[in-house]
Amino acid sequence: MIEDLSAIVGPRYVLTGADTDKWGRDWTGAYVAQPLAVVRPADTAEVAAVMAFAHAASLPVVPVSGNTGLNGGAHGDNAIVLSLDRLNSIETIDVAGRSATVGAGVVLTQLHDAVAAHDLIFPMTFGARGSAMVGGILSTNAGGSNVVRYGNTRDLVLGIEVVMADGRIMDLMTALHKDNSGLNLRHLMIGAEGTLGIITRAIVKLFPKPAAYATATVAVPTLTDALALLHRIQAVTGGAVEAFEYMPAAYIAGHLAVVAGAKPPFAKAHDVNLLIEVGEDADRLTTLLAEMLEADQVLDAVIAQNEAQRQDMWARREAAAEITFHRRPFVDTDVAVALPMVERFLTEARARLTELDPEADDLSVAHLGDGNIHYTAYPSRDDPALKDAIKEMVEDVVTELRGSFSAEHGVGISKLKTMARRKDPVALDTMRAIKAALDPKGILNPGKLYPPKRA
Amino acid sequence: MIEDLSAIVGPRYVLTGADTDKWGRDWTGAYVAQPLAVVRPADTAEVAAVMAFAHAASLPVVPVSGNTGLNGGAHGDNAIVLSLDRLNSIETIDVAGRSATVGAGVVLTQLHDAVAAHDLIFPMTFGARGSAMVGGILSTNAGGSNVVRYGNTRDLVLGIEVVMADGRIMDLMTALHKDNSGLNLRHLMIGAEGTLGIITRAIVKLFPKPAAYATATVAVPTLTDALALLHRIQAVTGGAVEAFEYMPAAYIAGHLAVVAGAKPPFAKAHDVNLLIEVGEDADRLTTLLAEMLEADQVLDAVIAQNEAQRQDMWARREAAAEITFHRRPFVDTDVAVALPMVERFLTEARARLTELDPEADDLSVAHLGDGNIHYTAYPSRDDPALKDAIKEMVEDVVTELRGSFSAEHGVGISKLKTMARRKDPVALDTMRAIKAALDPKGILNPGKLYPPKRA
Repeated sequence: MIEDLSAIVGPRYVLTGADTDKWGRDWTGAYVAQPLAVVRPADTAEVAAVMAFAHAASLPVVPVSGNTGLNGGAHGDNAIVLSLDRLNSIETIDVAGRSATVGAGVVLTQLHDAVAAHDLIFPMTFGARGSAMVGGILSTNAGGSNVVRYGNTRDLVLGIEVVMADGRIMDLMTALHKDNSGLNLRHLMIGAEGTLGIITRAIVKLFPKPAAYATATVAVPTLTDALALLHRIQAVTGGAVEAFEYMPAAYIAGHLAVVAGAKPPFAKAHDVNLLIEVGEDADRLTTLLAEMLEADQVLDAVIAQNEAQRQDMWARREAAAEITFHRRPFVDTDVAVALPMVERFLTEARARLTELDPEADDLSVAHLGDGNIHYTAYPSRDDPALKDAIKEMVEDVVTELRGSFSAEHGVGISKLKTMARRKDPVALDTMRAIKAALDPKGILNPGKLYPPKRA
Repeated sequence: MIEDLSAIVGPRYVLTGADTDKWGRDWTGAYVAQPLAVVRPADTAEVAAVMAFAHAASLPVVPVSGNTGLNGGAHGDNAIVLSLDRLNSIETIDVAGRSATVGAGVVLTQLHDAVAAHDLIFPMTFGARGSAMVGGILSTNAGGSNVVRYGNTRDLVLGIEVVMADGRIMDLMTALHKDNSGLNLRHLMIGAEGTLGIITRAIVKLFPKPAAYATATVAVPTLTDALALLHRIQAVTGGAVEAFEYMPAAYIAGHLAVVAGAKPPFAKAHDVNLLIEVGEDADRLTTLLAEMLEADQVLDAVIAQNEAQRQDMWARREAAAEITFHRRPFVDTDVAVALPMVERFLTEARARLTELDPEADDLSVAHLGDGNIHYTAYPSRDDPALKDAIKEMVEDVVTELRGSFSAEHGVGISKLKTMARRKDPVALDTMRAIKAALDPKGILNPGKLYPPKRA
């Protein structure tokens, strides 16, 4: 096998033994793997040749790019780990057409920097942007903080190139805003977590950099008021809201406790604090907030007066992982509900958590504009059965509210049991039928996304 | 068969013989069919029962709703025609959540009117809006004139319910803005032209009605200038362009010749005329156009001063079918290219048309903001071989520019040969594998979308 792979990519790019360590563990530390080998192809043709070889030999292949996922989706135990990191070229930036052609190994910040030179933005952004790569971002349909304006990753992609399980190359590399020439295979491959094919290149949408950003921290009485405020700002700005993030009082307190030098947003503590960013100057936002303060619809508001103040507001929101994982044990989740259901989700989850464990505590932080809540429970004891019960409880609430148990982090390995329990059974069968049709040998990223039939 | 179907939906809703005439012909007149029967189920459960029966009996089923397609996609010869027209209920309008739950038989204008009562819009719109229904709109991923701002149909749909080939019901009825719980089956079903399942209900996105519309007809020197103008307006309005439509001089002349009472947009004829609509008051558009007139970047511009003038501008653009099909014989197409390629497409197509037929003429009208061109050629004689040659010539140009031979009208029957010739062969195989996996008996809308293997 090593010889065959070396013949394709060159011996320098086939790693074994201790050289594979970097690919043998993930960011969370939860998944430790011993790959058969790590292979680092230089381009699409080499990826195709590796897949043709693996297909003929019926060997499992786990594609990986930045390896920043949270669910073990790139866990490569006893498999060929196919690293896309060398496909790291930004091939073209089409300024007039507002698109960029990029390889799967391009790091998100690398793309951000390259298009900034043309006063354009690629709006997808999230904490791991300095390591996450295009291949993984597309394969997991990453979300983040700007979805309320620009959509999820799949909404930002015009074309893709995919190496199929048998090594054939599927060419969907078009830069079209309308294309009804058959089934939409692009959307099928995006978010498939590398189980249906390996995305090697993409054409992504670019947008003009907003002339200004108005950023504010705002307190309102309730989450219902927060949703009303979102709609008011969208109406006066013509839909220019770029971020609409929720931080409850406990989150603000956690920030002050955990982060050195942290400051409270307001003199008085409030239950519902929002980080709001609008892609225009602050005039219309300021006028609206002043009116609503006057009418007691807004309790308090601070508008960033300069970039440093803006960055401070964002630093508070982006300290989420630090704040959330500071206390242990914890059960963290990534759920979505319809926008008007966020308040009900939080109330229900809290009540049922207390039933399960009267001493337990919880903490939320949410992409409120998308109905995406990162809800974390802190049980009073490190008891696996209790933690499982809490997980199931959160799933129960989500199911009752017709929400999703995986909003943006995907399924990977860690949510396989949840998939088996909660996914519509006809949808699950349909997923399995498609997987069997496109990867009949089951060699692409095995053990992820599709729960075994009798889980 | 009639008895079995009657037992499911009631005898009143199973039509045969002359009663099926309405479903036996399509809007274009090109497809005349003799259905085995037309069955009109009342709800999802009845649709599921019809499919379970048809699956057991291996009978073909052609789903149809408004029957306004242009490619024969609902052609129901020698098949059970399953009409969704009775699933015509707008079940809920969630004002806070900005979504509506609707049946597949809801007519587009019915939905427009219902949400207008809440100052909301469902932005999808096109000429056939008074007859087209939700089921067909989703199954064909309809486009239209507002795609530049709101996207295609698939971008406006949060959830769907689908009856599968064997009668099972797949429940994807969620109203979520983030959901990474497995393969995206919603996007697979939308645009599948009823070949993978029958969409029975949907949850669609609603948007605030813009506070105002600024509508203008503008002349610029070239299509490259038009694209630059689009970007300038997007920049000053923060992306508020709702429509950006191209009408060349020949189109304006055709309008004057064909439509009684038609008036020219400008005193002088121009090559590149644009209909532009922005979802805000006219202040920023007016300032920008004045500046650009001054700088000779814009040749002429008229801004609608009232709703009547706005409607006149739209009437000119919406007379496209009348203007285009007034002359015969014609070869009409529906292509898309990347935005900067529109000018090159038109120049190339014109040059090669003249090579094929020196006496031929052509006419274009385009959703320029989406790169979607309706290019029509008028050969000098009604010669099927010449018409085929023109079709292939247009496909050649589109292929060379990495465009799509079907931007918004879909494939149906009329573009099967084109699919066989032009679609990436790996993509075509992938489509066929998915079709075989989800409809192994091939009973759902047979003869559409997938060209036979040896076409």
